[in-house]
Amino acid sequence: MAKEKCCFGVDVGGTTVKIGCFDKEGHLISKWEIPTRKESQGKYILPDVAESLKERMEMDGIELENVQGIGIGVPGPVLANGTVERCVNLGWGHTDMKGILRQYFPGVDIEAGNDANVAALGEVWRGAGRGKKNAVMVTLGTGVGGGVGIAVQIVSGVHGMGGEIGHIHIRDEDQDTCNCGGHGCLEQTASATGLVREAKRLLQAAPEKTSSMLEYGEKLEAKDIVACAVQGDELALKAIDTMSFYLGRALASIAMVVDPEVFIIGGGVSRAGKFLNDKIEKYYYEYAPLTGSKSEIVTALLGNDAGIYGAAKMVLD
Amino acid sequence: MAKEKCCFGVDVGGTTVKIGCFDKEGHLISKWEIPTRKESQGKYILPDVAESLKERMEMDGIELENVQGIGIGVPGPVLANGTVERCVNLGWGHTDMKGILRQYFPGVDIEAGNDANVAALGEVWRGAGRGKKNAVMVTLGTGVGGGVGIAVQIVSGVHGMGGEIGHIHIRDEDQDTCNCGGHGCLEQTASATGLVREAKRLLQAAPEKTSSMLEYGEKLEAKDIVACAVQGDELALKAIDTMSFYLGRALASIAMVVDPEVFIIGGGVSRAGKFLNDKIEKYYYEYAPLTGSKSEIVTALLGNDAGIYGAAKMVLD
Repeated sequence: MAKEKCCFGVDVGGTTVKIGCFDKEGHLISKWEIPTRKESQGKYILPDVAESLKERMEMDGIELENVQGIGIGVPGPVLANGTVERCVNLGWGHTDMKGILRQYFPGVDIEAGNDANVAALGEVWRGAGRGKKNAVMVTLGTGVGGGVGIAVQIVSGVHGMGGEIGHIHIRDEDQDTCNCGGHGCLEQTASATGLVREAKRLLQAAPEKTSSMLEYGEKLEAKDIVACAVQGDELALKAIDTMSFYLGRALASIAMVVDPEVFIIGGGVSRAGKFLNDKIEKYYYEYAPLTGSKSEIVTALLGNDAGIYGAAKMVLD
Repeated sequence: MAKEKCCFGVDVGGTTVKIGCFDKEGHLISKWEIPTRKESQGKYILPDVAESLKERMEMDGIELENVQGIGIGVPGPVLANGTVERCVNLGWGHTDMKGILRQYFPGVDIEAGNDANVAALGEVWRGAGRGKKNAVMVTLGTGVGGGVGIAVQIVSGVHGMGGEIGHIHIRDEDQDTCNCGGHGCLEQTASATGLVREAKRLLQAAPEKTSSMLEYGEKLEAKDIVACAVQGDELALKAIDTMSFYLGRALASIAMVVDPEVFIIGGGVSRAGKFLNDKIEKYYYEYAPLTGSKSEIVTALLGNDAGIYGAAKMVLD
């Protein structure tokens, strides 16, 4: 392996950093994790990543000249020059990721991107979007992330806001303020968090109703709601229907902008699979008569590895 | 000129075909029009275009080998291979535009695209989007057309529906059926037609009100409404405010998908200029807190020439 070119894909999350080593054809050779040290405005994060990569290179006998590149995804808006202005999730102010990593790996191609966009790139390249010309990835997690991929290129936009579909305004009557400063954003309704909020609202509004969701009490999670809905619980079904309605509508809007071949649903809630996709599709069809019957809605395939795949892809091009 | 390479941009409309001859740097050398003959399922349209081009070549002493390419825009969805399945505006069923034109111009590069996308390409390349990395064009005419340009490449989508932003569902209470089969579409409210409909609704709902729009009677046009609004007419201002509200919101959604550097407003209504742009911007800012203050809203510059510029650009790449 010492003579073969390889590359690294790095996915920096709020708790752990996932790292993958890929061969030059883009096959995952090994992967591991290190903790994300957020103390002191996150100043240790990139040095920790660099040190972990150097250790691995030494262990596997990889020379610097054999490293084709290092791709890195971080949870914040990344400008085209590989800098972030601010990344609240990591405690960073202005940070020149490429510049910092280049000090450790001189001459190596370094590319940086937003984590949701990078994960979308991974799914489009090696996951559910493989072989598709054009795909939109929707990640239903704590928020709603997204990525728009056109011919395995991510549309990150001019201010790094491309694919920020969680902040499409979609619901007028929702007056709670979103963390973007707006209200009625898609992610306030269609994320895992939003689904729980919706279910709790419904339970509160119908105290006389029996619901299997009540067993979970305050600890009710999105996956519990899905489980109850699959069992036919009326209020759980209603919560998922509301989520699917707004999500299906948002996908319809997105289709009229970029017209993807496939929508890829990822994140924890997507484990509901076809049960959820069919409900989303119903509303998507209704609000996108021009493409509704033509685009597919599928579940993501790579799970938590999407980020390292996408990060690697950035330097394999 | 006989020795210099040139190319042709062709913009096929429902009434006339506009044709431009460009030098290889993309400067417009001459332009002219021929009628669009829609009889017999539009079978004469492409032969008429070919004949007109041949005449011009003969007049100007242009040899076939000096023609770098011919780009053509038509009012319908165009697939990546340059065919249309159906183009109701021209009477066409399945039509292989590239194949037909190649018979007249063997060896010449022929490219075809949707007219709104092609006009957007023209504006992005040589008009209001010149020098921008990323732009979305919104054409407010009989309907609302659009085009999404990323680095002077148009995102036409997998089914030719990219940039069909006029069919973003935006207004729940609007139950009239749109020609796409949906309802509450952006173009039902924000086109020239939609603005007239809105103004007539307001006049009907407030018969006791005086309005300078009443002078125009049934013949009221979008430009009259703009003129009345600029003069301070209350109902005309209200109609334009409603249009701007929904348009601003739609632009906010689009920003969360592709995050453009600039939105270019074209079409007849866009002649209202800053008066209209400021109103759209107000709502755009409100619903896109993440990018609102960063993206510009500007008026298109090329007018009816956008289509021939964009068509030429397709073959100059």
